[in-house]
Amino acid sequence: MVQVGLVMGSISDWPTMQLAAQQLTTLGVDYERRIISAHRMPDVLQDYGQQARDRGLQVIIAGAGGAAHLPGMLAANTVLPVIGVPMQSHVLNGMDSLLSIVQMPAGVSVATMAIGAAGAKNAALLAAQILGLQDQRIQTQVQAFRQRQREEAAQSEQQF
Amino acid sequence: MVQVGLVMGSISDWPTMQLAAQQLTTLGVDYERRIISAHRMPDVLQDYGQQARDRGLQVIIAGAGGAAHLPGMLAANTVLPVIGVPMQSHVLNGMDSLLSIVQMPAGVSVATMAIGAAGAKNAALLAAQILGLQDQRIQTQVQAFRQRQREEAAQSEQQF
Amino acid sequence: MVQVGLVMGSISDWPTMQLAAQQLTTLGVDYERRIISAHRMPDVLQDYGQQARDRGLQVIIAGAGGAAHLPGMLAANTVLPVIGVPMQSHVLNGMDSLLSIVQMPAGVSVATMAIGAAGAKNAALLAAQILGLQDQRIQTQVQAFRQRQREEAAQSEQQF
Amino acid sequence: MVQVGLVMGSISDWPTMQLAAQQLTTLGVDYERRIISAHRMPDVLQDYGQQARDRGLQVIIAGAGGAAHLPGMLAANTVLPVIGVPMQSHVLNGMDSLLSIVQMPAGVSVATMAIGAAGAKNAALLAAQILGLQDQRIQTQVQAFRQRQREEAAQSEQQF
Amino acid sequence: MVQVGLVMGSISDWPTMQLAAQQLTTLGVDYERRIISAHRMPDVLQDYGQQARDRGLQVIIAGAGGAAHLPGMLAANTVLPVIGVPMQSHVLNGMDSLLSIVQMPAGVSVATMAIGAAGAKNAALLAAQILGLQDQRIQTQVQAFRQRQREEAAQSEQQF
Amino acid sequence: MVQVGLVMGSISDWPTMQLAAQQLTTLGVDYERRIISAHRMPDVLQDYGQQARDRGLQVIIAGAGGAAHLPGMLAANTVLPVIGVPMQSHVLNGMDSLLSIVQMPAGVSVATMAIGAAGAKNAALLAAQILGLQDQRIQTQVQAFRQRQREEAAQSEQQF
Amino acid sequence: MVQVGLVMGSISDWPTMQLAAQQLTTLGVDYERRIISAHRMPDVLQDYGQQARDRGLQVIIAGAGGAAHLPGMLAANTVLPVIGVPMQSHVLNGMDSLLSIVQMPAGVSVATMAIGAAGAKNAALLAAQILGLQDQRIQTQVQAFRQRQREEAAQSEQQF
Amino acid sequence: MVQVGLVMGSISDWPTMQLAAQQLTTLGVDYERRIISAHRMPDVLQDYGQQARDRGLQVIIAGAGGAAHLPGMLAANTVLPVIGVPMQSHVLNGMDSLLSIVQMPAGVSVATMAIGAAGAKNAALLAAQILGLQDQRIQTQVQAFRQRQREEAAQSEQQF
Repeated sequence: MVQVGLVMGSISDWPTMQLAAQQLTTLGVDYERRIISAHRMPDVLQDYGQQARDRGLQVIIAGAGGAAHLPGMLAANTVLPVIGVPMQSHVLNGMDSLLSIVQMPAGVSVATMAIGAAGAKNAALLAAQILGLQDQRIQTQVQAFRQRQREEAAQSEQQF
Repeated sequence: MVQVGLVMGSISDWPTMQLAAQQLTTLGVDYERRIISAHRMPDVLQDYGQQARDRGLQVIIAGAGGAAHLPGMLAANTVLPVIGVPMQSHVLNGMDSLLSIVQMPAGVSVATMAIGAAGAKNAALLAAQILGLQDQRIQTQVQAFRQRQREEAAQSEQQF
Repeated sequence: MVQVGLVMGSISDWPTMQLAAQQLTTLGVDYERRIISAHRMPDVLQDYGQQARDRGLQVIIAGAGGAAHLPGMLAANTVLPVIGVPMQSHVLNGMDSLLSIVQMPAGVSVATMAIGAAGAKNAALLAAQILGLQDQRIQTQVQAFRQRQREEAAQSEQQF
Repeated sequence: MVQVGLVMGSISDWPTMQLAAQQLTTLGVDYERRIISAHRMPDVLQDYGQQARDRGLQVIIAGAGGAAHLPGMLAANTVLPVIGVPMQSHVLNGMDSLLSIVQMPAGVSVATMAIGAAGAKNAALLAAQILGLQDQRIQTQVQAFRQRQREEAAQSEQQF
Repeated sequence: MVQVGLVMGSISDWPTMQLAAQQLTTLGVDYERRIISAHRMPDVLQDYGQQARDRGLQVIIAGAGGAAHLPGMLAANTVLPVIGVPMQSHVLNGMDSLLSIVQMPAGVSVATMAIGAAGAKNAALLAAQILGLQDQRIQTQVQAFRQRQREEAAQSEQQF
Repeated sequence: MVQVGLVMGSISDWPTMQLAAQQLTTLGVDYERRIISAHRMPDVLQDYGQQARDRGLQVIIAGAGGAAHLPGMLAANTVLPVIGVPMQSHVLNGMDSLLSIVQMPAGVSVATMAIGAAGAKNAALLAAQILGLQDQRIQTQVQAFRQRQREEAAQSEQQF
Repeated sequence: MVQVGLVMGSISDWPTMQLAAQQLTTLGVDYERRIISAHRMPDVLQDYGQQARDRGLQVIIAGAGGAAHLPGMLAANTVLPVIGVPMQSHVLNGMDSLLSIVQMPAGVSVATMAIGAAGAKNAALLAAQILGLQDQRIQTQVQAFRQRQREEAAQSEQQF
Repeated sequence: MVQVGLVMGSISDWPTMQLAAQQLTTLGVDYERRIISAHRMPDVLQDYGQQARDRGLQVIIAGAGGAAHLPGMLAANTVLPVIGVPMQSHVLNGMDSLLSIVQMPAGVSVATMAIGAAGAKNAALLAAQILGLQDQRIQTQVQAFRQRQREEAAQSEQQF
């Protein structure tokens, strides 16, 4: 059953957001992926947010760049946790994306990740950590991933 | 007939946005004022944008702060020109508001003003300049305002 | 009849500003293009601004970079709406261009767009939205463009 | 049963972090509060992170300012979701706090909130949204809170 | 004979720019002061720049804030050295003023000073240094001022 | 007779600073060029500054990058006008160079130019404008250069 | 015997730098304090740096603001470790001070601290840590200070 | 005997940090190198910090990027001087690394270097300057290095 909605504002965000997709797969989390432009299809955005919980989703990951409105507007339309990934924009290196996503006013919350690739991977990790609270299998996957990471870091030292 | 919709995300934006209201009055432009939070009432936002043209509005002025999504989301829902006013936010002085409003992706446009009070006044002025293209009375008001400004600047020198 | 003046500070701005030109053509808007350096030919700038309305122009789009004075100084010389496009400058990625254009003092207004290519395209779109208030043909073009955009975004999802 | 650990780096963060505490109470979430300085008591931090899950916590909220290491280091020591709140620092308005918290490398994730008061409130809201995935009572509280917010925004308009 | 034109964009700049005036007096330099708004009276600006040399001025000091166009546009209209003083703007602390003044394109030069009070004083000092190249009396004043400064700094240490 | 000292902190600054050199030559100004590292040879810097006037120099142009101390320290050692050129640094695009040069405290003045190539060319132009106050030949060269620039800008329009 | 030279650019830096002085006293480190303006008395700066080691100093702490040249120029004149404290400047909150101090080119090193009060205290602490490498008494003082800090943090929690 | 611990957060930091290693070798300082990820192996970090002094280390150099917690957390676990090197991060050019390292709260101190390559080299130099306080051989090496640098700078001028 699909647990995570992986949404991005444009197909040009896919090279970054596929890192989230791969990480979700690694952690054994089912997801659907959607392209929903906040500005080109605002009604689709609204419907997606409003129906997400009833469709059985548990977490939404949303990536967007520049004046990035997708994560915040999705969060405005659902009670599910929404994780925002700021794209590394061309002109301002993603500082615009970051501030547009993280500086939400009190009352609607977006769990904001780092700009770009690291943020996309960590969005998947955070989604799995949230799901792992009620799904022991996923939590075990997260623990295993963390252990592998630690071992890889240790091994990289030996290859010096 | 109401020509301009003056919208803000929160009543806390009114001390700034009333400068736009006063300037509209000075220039002889009729407006309505609304508080529409993009995040707390996204469906109201969508309805307002979609109905604005048919209700006879010609220009929308939207003020918002922080991760400011109101101007861009209104613009996504209408073909009317939308003018955005970045509020001077408490923590980042409005740099977050500015980037959240101005850095729109290609395809949906927001006419962005300066941060804070100057931006609010100039939003009204720009609205009047747009309306003045087809309403000679308003254009004359704009010209008179510009002339008064010039005279005040000249007089301030004499008071040195 | 030429409705839009498309002005840039240097021929080096053309690769960006031609995106505005193409978008104007797409939307059925006639324009003239000019290179007017605010700093190298300030009197030409002043004449252009002062004569724009009487020459029948309705909107001016002005692109400039660095300490970008062209949009604001044109706005100081006309009652027509002026749309500013901040070039993506080499050293500071256009943050200097953006602040030089958007932070206008109260009294003279520039409708500021995003930095670079997105801003150039959106300047044309905003010009068409303004003209569309009194020209049904152009407003229909804008609506058709917005519809195409929406469809392209939807199709890009299917190509996943 | 305590579900949320509300941790801050210094008692000077309490005026901000108590907004998170109040919001948790509003939403019917039990929490414990701790002062754990990442730099003055790094071993306490490590123990707290490593024992959090076994102690029954489900979410950690961590507020810190300046070179803010508390949220990231807690996240490094637990598989629970960690929510980071950047304090509004005195000298750089919290931009240092924000970047120190949000720019986590791939592999360890912190759900970053807005700088200061809005971020503290939203951290509590996000925690409740996460808990609400498996606790219908809390999810209902979140929905009721969101509805109240919407009504307050609507009412503020009527008080114009 | 008036050697320096001290120009500002608004009377609100006078509290800062009077520090330049006082410093000019201290250094024995004659000046005239003018309020010329680049945006409200662009033709006055142009005339002032074009006539400055023939009126016997040798240096122009121009203070302006926000999207500060005054120094650059004066420089575009004269071959005299123009010194720019960025006002400490309300919203962005003068970073907008600084970038609008200093980031001039190749071909027109503005000698940019520090933001605010220090910049205003140093503008006067630089003007005197330039005039001192051909006026021994002024250069001697500059040397005496520098010597007094040094002594004051030394004395402040003794008062510890 | 050498009128301008063209100083840079490192030979790696030469690709930028040679643009100043070429512009000086174009304007008929004699210069000497020196590499003086503020940090590697502080005593040479001090001697150069202290002897500059007696050696007959009239203006010093100093280019430096990062924590750029060369222009300010030269200014501290001479009453001649010092023009600072911020190098476009690798990591922060020259924002560090700019702030290190322009934010001088009251009492010692550096005429700061734009970051990088434009700043180097304009430093030469400003030097010529200063020298032109007492040397009609150089002022005429500046006027001719400005005229050529204007013509080139006009011609670039015709080549559209 | 004086081990640390505590230098500042202006007596206006003393309210911040006295925190370093107090911390040095707390840690049992002898120091001398000096006001040496890099720009007003560059030769005193040079002499101080060049004689520091022979006078028996072991560490220099230097505080300065804006275009802060004092720490780097002292470092250029001595082989002793130099610790730089960026003052919180009025206009740019110390970002200019920080970049002017920390972005030293390869070859001359300044140990840079946080902006303002925290940086002043930590400069003293770092000086004591360096001296403690060869002076067991001082290292013991540092350890005791760190222990007290830890206890105070723990106690602040109990006072909740 | 190993005197310096050269630690980095990831093997991807080695291209930068090897410049520190080479510089240490040039200056005759023995070091060990370690990869210790603050986030992937926080307990190794803690052990390394706590044992560093007893293992005979005198100085720790730590390089890290993004939300860089390694230097500060090492400093929290040792009384040895810790030198931090901010990596030039991909998205924000190292501004995030710099602020995460330098903005330490009062009580724990990190000697922060410039972003990237210059900072890595200078970290080694500072370590040698600290060690040179009690090891005449190393101080002589530092002096010789400084002298060679000066000569190279002088020679680069002759090769003009």
